Amino acid sequence: MSPVAPTERSTLRRRPDRGRYDDDTIAAILDEALICHLGLVDPEGRPFVVPTIHARVGNHLYLHGSPASRALRTAARDVEVCVTVTLVDGLVLARSAFHHSMNYRSVVVYGSATRVEDPAEKVAALAAVVEHVLAGRSDGCRPPSETEVKGTLVLRVPLDEASAKVRTGGPVDDDDDMDVPVWAGHVPLRLVAGEPVADPGITAQWPAYELTRP
Amino acid sequence: MSPVAPTERSTLRRRPDRGRYDDDTIAAILDEALICHLGLVDPEGRPFVVPTIHARVGNHLYLHGSPASRALRTAARDVEVCVTVTLVDGLVLARSAFHHSMNYRSVVVYGSATRVEDPAEKVAALAAVVEHVLAGRSDGCRPPSETEVKGTLVLRVPLDEASAKVRTGGPVDDDDDMDVPVWAGHVPLRLVAGEPVADPGITAQWPAYELTRP
Repeated sequence: MSPVAPTERSTLRRRPDRGRYDDDTIAAILDEALICHLGLVDPEGRPFVVPTIHARVGNHLYLHGSPASRALRTAARDVEVCVTVTLVDGLVLARSAFHHSMNYRSVVVYGSATRVEDPAEKVAALAAVVEHVLAGRSDGCRPPSETEVKGTLVLRVPLDEASAKVRTGGPVDDDDDMDVPVWAGHVPLRLVAGEPVADPGITAQWPAYELTRP
Repeated sequence: MSPVAPTERSTLRRRPDRGRYDDDTIAAILDEALICHLGLVDPEGRPFVVPTIHARVGNHLYLHGSPASRALRTAARDVEVCVTVTLVDGLVLARSAFHHSMNYRSVVVYGSATRVEDPAEKVAALAAVVEHVLAGRSDGCRPPSETEVKGTLVLRVPLDEASAKVRTGGPVDDDDDMDVPVWAGHVPLRLVAGEPVADPGITAQWPAYELTRP
């Protein structure tokens, strides 16, 4: 990824100590997050936010979906979007109610979404989305047909204006509260995969995919 | 919760079979999700989406934060917001790349955010936020001081215009793909708590909180 310079909009003002603008941090969070939240402004000027799957390829984020999707149709008009991904890493339990918090890693991407028309770029983006969900999954499953590629809306958002925000560790309590007789600390959280559930009728074995992200 | 009637905006058109409008489904998803994504329109008419902690109390959603937060200051002007929560329940691995999907439960709430001024309602909302993060946690930790309550921005969004979307189960493949020799099925995912990490200096024991949500 090329360097991302913080802009007026992407500069964190609230808790700037938690801001990160380096490419590697931003890329790692985008790659680990299974889904993103796509924010748009509807024709009446009202916000709407939908969850969707994304994939990062270099310095671009790709989104895809049905041309019937209101969200993606709106975004395909070269309008401004905001794409936010959040990884919840833990509960932060402080001595005071006030200082309770969460540990998390989030990225906010601002930009203009462009509809991808080139079939080769669309095919590559769709493969990246499948690989984003599960590395190695593109091998073996049927690739998209020409009709499927044509029938899928693919959007590209540059990662030129993005910021990450990261909180880690335990609570930060007020000095006066250090003797409050309550348990304080943090509880790590992570997304864990259960046993794969095979579809009826398959004969292929589970290919031992790595389910731990990224 | 009182019944929520689907409006033009909250009615799902894409995959209406996945739409749910009953109060219990909507409430359960909001209660299980640790965070939400708050969507707003900035003064220049551009969308922005920030992750934040919420709590549901009856037929209202409460959000809170610092008065210094740009997102919450914007939302406090009685502007339209969109609050989306998403629980990722699993990967759906189809025989074709095209039919790959995710299992999830999501809720989209549209509404106007109102700044809560009444101190008693603010205190109740802040306690609900702590209880939302971890049930039982309000007992024992120091309650908010008058200064802390005054210094916290609390927003109320009615749950009058909301919809849920739910996908469960395995892949839905095309008939022609049923013999593709690849593993197909789904992989359940869930957010799991690790070992609590105690803050230095505490003397209280871990109160055996129930960490499995909801």
